[in-house]
Formats: sequence, C-alpha cells, structure tokens
Amino acid sequence: MSEACTKSALARSVARELALAPRSQRERALLAAAARIRADEGTILAANSRDLERARAAGMRASLVDRLALDHERLSGMASSLEEIAGQPDPLGRVLDGSTLDNGLRVERVTVPLGVVALIYEARPNVTADAFGLCLRSGNACVLKGGSAAQESCLSLVASCRAALAEAGLPEDALQYVEDDAGHTQTQELITANGLVDVLIPRGGASLIRACLERATVPVIETGTGNCHVYVHESADLARARAIVMNAKTQRTGVCNAAESLLVDRAVAAEFLPDMLRELAGAGVIVHADGETLAVAEGLDLPEGALVAATEEDWGTEYLALEISCRVVSGVGEAVEHVNRYGTGHSEAIVADSYEACEAFLAGVDAAAVYANASTRFTDGGVFGLGAEIGISTQKLHARGPMGASALTTTKYLVRGNGQTR
Amino acid sequence: MSEACTKSALARSVARELALAPRSQRERALLAAAARIRADEGTILAANSRDLERARAAGMRASLVDRLALDHERLSGMASSLEEIAGQPDPLGRVLDGSTLDNGLRVERVTVPLGVVALIYEARPNVTADAFGLCLRSGNACVLKGGSAAQESCLSLVASCRAALAEAGLPEDALQYVEDDAGHTQTQELITANGLVDVLIPRGGASLIRACLERATVPVIETGTGNCHVYVHESADLARARAIVMNAKTQRTGVCNAAESLLVDRAVAAEFLPDMLRELAGAGVIVHADGETLAVAEGLDLPEGALVAATEEDWGTEYLALEISCRVVSGVGEAVEHVNRYGTGHSEAIVADSYEACEAFLAGVDAAAVYANASTRFTDGGVFGLGAEIGISTQKLHARGPMGASALTTTKYLVRGNGQTR
Repeated sequence: MSEACTKSALARSVARELALAPRSQRERALLAAAARIRADEGTILAANSRDLERARAAGMRASLVDRLALDHERLSGMASSLEEIAGQPDPLGRVLDGSTLDNGLRVERVTVPLGVVALIYEARPNVTADAFGLCLRSGNACVLKGGSAAQESCLSLVASCRAALAEAGLPEDALQYVEDDAGHTQTQELITANGLVDVLIPRGGASLIRACLERATVPVIETGTGNCHVYVHESADLARARAIVMNAKTQRTGVCNAAESLLVDRAVAAEFLPDMLRELAGAGVIVHADGETLAVAEGLDLPEGALVAATEEDWGTEYLALEISCRVVSGVGEAVEHVNRYGTGHSEAIVADSYEACEAFLAGVDAAAVYANASTRFTDGGVFGLGAEIGISTQKLHARGPMGASALTTTKYLVRGNGQTR
Repeated sequence: MSEACTKSALARSVARELALAPRSQRERALLAAAARIRADEGTILAANSRDLERARAAGMRASLVDRLALDHERLSGMASSLEEIAGQPDPLGRVLDGSTLDNGLRVERVTVPLGVVALIYEARPNVTADAFGLCLRSGNACVLKGGSAAQESCLSLVASCRAALAEAGLPEDALQYVEDDAGHTQTQELITANGLVDVLIPRGGASLIRACLERATVPVIETGTGNCHVYVHESADLARARAIVMNAKTQRTGVCNAAESLLVDRAVAAEFLPDMLRELAGAGVIVHADGETLAVAEGLDLPEGALVAATEEDWGTEYLALEISCRVVSGVGEAVEHVNRYGTGHSEAIVADSYEACEAFLAGVDAAAVYANASTRFTDGGVFGLGAEIGISTQKLHARGPMGASALTTTKYLVRGNGQTR
C-alpha cells in the first residue's frame, strides 16, 4: 500500500473517534496546538531555514520564497488563527430542522463531520495549521500534502499539532502528512483513495486544481480561479470607481479575488477612462482594451505598452499580474451578460449610485460573491468572519465562496420511533 | 452539436430568466402543469399505451411494465404532486445568514438556483413530472432524459408541462427532453456538457449510476444504493424487532431503503432467531447466515434453501430481492462497526429498549438516515415532508438523504458597501 493510502487509512481509522469527541476536547486540542506552535518556534523556524536554503539554492522566485518563509510574527499569526478557530461556534451537532411525522416518527437533521478531508496545496506552511484547525473544529480527520519545497516546515508544524492532539486525549492519527515524492505517485494515490477520503480540496494555482479535477475519483471541491470584474455604471461616483478598480487590481495581484477585467458604461466612458487609464498606467498595469477604449485613449500620451488591443481570449483570462482587460458596455444588462459569460463565478462588483442598477447586478450575476460599491478583494473567509478559510469554492455544489469549518460538515437524519412500519 | 448539447444550451439560455422569475409566477406554472396533465389525460394515456405495447412486444419484465404504465389514478397522483410542490415554501431568496462587517460592508448569504439541472432516469414517466416540478420550484431549468421505453409517455408529459410554462409567461425552453438514441451518444454528451449543465442526477439502478459517476465530467450527485441494516439489540422488544425486520425486508424489495442485512445481539440470538427465521422463510426470504445463525437454526426444519451460508461478499450485497444477510454480533459497538464498514450510508436501524444503545447507534453510524425503533423504509422525500423527491443522495457533499427542491439550490454572498477598499 502506498504511503498516501496507508496514511489515509490511518486517518479513516480514527475519524469516528474524532467525530464523537466533545466540543471542549476539540477546542482544548486547538488551543494546545496554538501553544505548542508558539513553544516550538525554534524547531519550526530551523526546519523552515533548511527549506528556504534549499529553495534559494534551487533558484525559487522571490514571491514564492516569501510565501514559504516563516518568522516569529507569522508563527504567532498561525497560533492566533488556531485560537480564533477554537473560539468559533461549534459547527457539529447543529439541529438544522426537524418535525414529528403524523405516524409519530420524530425526524431531525443534524450537522456531522464529513469524515476524512484531504488537502493538496503549494509550498505554504501556514496552510498546514489553518487546514488542521478547520478540520479539527469540524471533527474531521485530515490528510495533508503540501508542496515539496515546504516539506520540513510542514512536518515540523505537523509534529507540534499531533502532540497537541495527544495532549488533549485525541488520536494523533487524526492528522496525517503525506511526504512528497519525485513522480507525483503519492498525489495520484491520494486523489483516488475512494472509501478512505471523503473530500479532496486542492488549494493552489490553476494547473494544480485542474490536474486534481481531471484525475481525482474522490469527491473534489473546486477552489480558487477568479476572473473577477469591476463594472462602472453610468451613475457611479467616478472617483470612487477609480479607487475600487485600483484596489481590486493592484493591492495584491496574485490572488483569486483580484480584478482581471473592467467594464465601463458607454455613457461615461469618455469622462471616466482617461483618468482611469492614466492611473492604471502609473501603477504599471497593462490594459488589454477593446476598440472603444482604444478610441477614447487616443492622444492620452500613455507610456509605451500600457495599452494593447484585447483579443477574445482576454475576456476569459485570469492574469494574476499587473494586467487588466477593459471593455465598454451599453449598460447593466450587457454588463451582467458579459460577466456571466466570461466570469468564473468568483467575485464580481458594480460601482453605481443607481439603486436599480445595483440591485439588477446583485440579482443578475451568477457568482459566489457579488458586490455593490466595494472592492472584490473582500472575498475571504477571515473577512467574512469564518476565522480561517480552507479555500474559496468556485463551484455551486456543497459550498460556494469562502469555506470555513462548517463547509467541512454534512448532515444526517436522526429518526426516533416506537415500532413504526410502512 | 449533438441534441443533448443543443438542448442543454437552450436550457442554459433561459436559466437566468427562470432564476429571476417571481415566486408566484413559478407557482402559477406548477399549477398550470398540474391542470394540463389532468386535461391532457387522453393524449398522455394514448402515448403511454404505445410505449406499453412496444415494451410488451419486446418482452419487458412485468415489474418494469408496471413502473411504465400510467392510468387515471397515476396521472392524478402526478398532478397532485405538482400542486403540493406549488404549495411548498419557496426555496429561493432565503437569507441564511449575514452580518455587517466592521468596515460597514453588509454581507448576506442567500439561496439561489443551481442553474441547469440534468436528470437521467429509467423508464418511469412519473419521474418526468416530479423532476420538472422540483426544478421549477427551485428556479432551475432542466434537461431530462428518461429510459427509451417510456419515451412517448415522457414526451407527451413534457409537452403538457412546456405549455404550462408558456401559459405562465415563462420560457418553454426551461424544460428540455433529450430523446434516446441507440448508442448512448446523447447520454455521453449530456454527462460531459460542462458549462451547460450545473449538476447531473442519475436516478435508477446501480449500473446506471456507476456509469454516470465514472464517465461524467459535470458535477454529479450520487443517489440510491442502499445496503441497509436492521440491528436487533439485546434490549429489543423481540416482537417489534420481527415486525420491523419483516417490513424493512419485504414490504417492497426493489427499493433502496429496503433492509438487506440483519444483525442480532449474541445475548438474544437463540431467543430471537428461530421465530425470525421461520417468519422470513414463510415470506419466501432467503437468509444468508453466518456460522452462529446457522448453529441456532439447526433443527428448525426450515424449507429447503431458506438458509444458506453467508460469504464475505454477502455483507456488502444489496440484494433488492427476497434475500437478506444475517450475522450475530457482540453488542452495539460491533454492530456500529459492521454497519460503517459494509453499509452504503443510506438508512440504518436499531431496535432496542435501551436508551444508551439507541443513542450510541444514532451517533455512531455514519449514514444519511439512522433510525431507532422504526423501519428503514421511511427514508423518502414524501414521508420526510419534502413533497416529491428528485432522488436520495448517498454522498456526503451538497445533499445527503432525500433531496427536495432546496437540494437544487446553491448560495451567493451579496455584499453592499459604500466605496470600501482593502
């Protein structure tokens, strides 16, 4: 049996014990994990240094090295996040609905853990603690597999968290970490561990997610692709619109809730676009523009290469970089149509002072989060009050948008009778 | 483009219109469909006669012919079911939760339709009306594909329902029916219509469901396999236990909530089993028994062939026939373990007078519905008050157990601000 299957089977073997553990015991384990991560700082940072050394020697990009690096502050953040999760309401045992049937059967529907949650992610050590915390909060055993570049850091964090489980009297095997191998054998084993893994959540770049979706036979929750739009309605406060566009595009570019496309009403294009295009160019953003935008921009004296003609492909592109597509539309109807056609159902925003336009956009756009007069950048489990997040679902089944602990539960009908037959 | 894709695209093209249609308009369409099915009885029954004639000529089994056959009463039942669905609370636009963030953003999570629901089912005309009704109730366009033997009946029902949509001012294209072809090309096209179909629900036998799960690339909800257990605890009222076992096994055998396995506590095996085995044999049920059961049965003078030795395979078998496996266990712990190992997570029952034993079984068994002192046969959307059901989910993601209209919804975050940036 492969390591991934052996470890998934170990997780499975203790999943019922975890599912039945009282709330206070799970919370004790979360707080113990936070305390141990703080106490084990020296060991964890030493492991991280070795990962960083190898990563730099292998020529890893600076932005990735940054995501890999731990320090006192980041470790404290991880611990605080676990403490916050421990303070959340328990997602288990909630009675969602119920009734007494005419024949006297008492039916209730309650929340229960999924069982075993598998997470495949990139070389980001902090995901290790967040994922463990959310799985434990929701009574799930978990099998984690992070990017190989972060392996020593992750294993060190996992050791602290497993010790915390034991300290709280819970089975250490409720947290498993699958080590990386050269040929992706373990990943392949993990995503096809039917009967052992109840759900797989790939968290990372588009290629990782696509690979999991295509090859997994266990249930998968799709996360993270975001071709997000900001639509500027003719009624918009144009200064506010520019501020929202700049924030949504440039505050962070590598994230799924960053804006990738700008739609502008024809009625205000000539007034809005010149300043907007100058401001984008000033921030180093390349604009992939439709014909009307190009026409408005004529004579603006933008820097060389700041404005290029958009192709059909641009409307569907998630740049994750200082690039944005831009198109002039005829109004909220055409904007909604464009967004529903090219969007990935992540986060979409309208900027408008018209109540009618805002409500039409909120109702008409089919996405996980739809904003009126705010940046798309707020779609985040922490911001929405879920504590940490285990990912942002861009699918419609099971969970949509930021997923916290309650997204890791399912339900069960409990039916109590006194001899009823049909 | 194949017929399945063309029709899915038509459904997709009107899905937003349906999603935004007011509650009363959807309800008018449901009532109009009920009225038309009643009014069109002659046409529908004539179409059904032609299906029946072909089926009989092809030598279809009597039980399948029965499921295919329509008459005045069955059509009335379909119409009543649509009327009941029209009377249900609206599953759309429910605000599930929400809050105002510190920065002033008002966040709310509301229920919205999935979009386009595809259903593949067997030659059962009544599923056509139920599926249409639940999809319309939940604002979803639907693409139906029933078994070829029921094609004329289904097309006739679809014509009545589409006329009802038009009568209520809704797009007829919200209901599509894909006709059967010899080579299953249309099924293959439908289950890979990514971007056009938001969810596929296969409803039928194990082979249909397995084929869809294996080959579909659109999201699938798994339904219907039920290896259901009845566990007789030593504290059980034994007469009640026998009544529940007989009902769960014999009231209908071809259904997913019928019992397929009997577990009996060792402490009461010698007292309970003789009468139980006689009663099962009397009803023509073949018992696949473990060694202890066989030992208890010695000298019972059961009919030839009523008792056979169970193999390991029997514990995992869904007979869907007058057969049941039987095993002696040491108590509730071993019973829970057996059920969680061999069950399919559908419906599981304990018969016991011990409060402790009942609660341990209810908490410990991982299934969609867990019963204390009642037959497993109650797991049904109608019984549980969901109106009709579109299937019984045996998966943990999205929906578990009987699925009514609300299982055909997803959620969306609506976020209203006044210029917030991050």
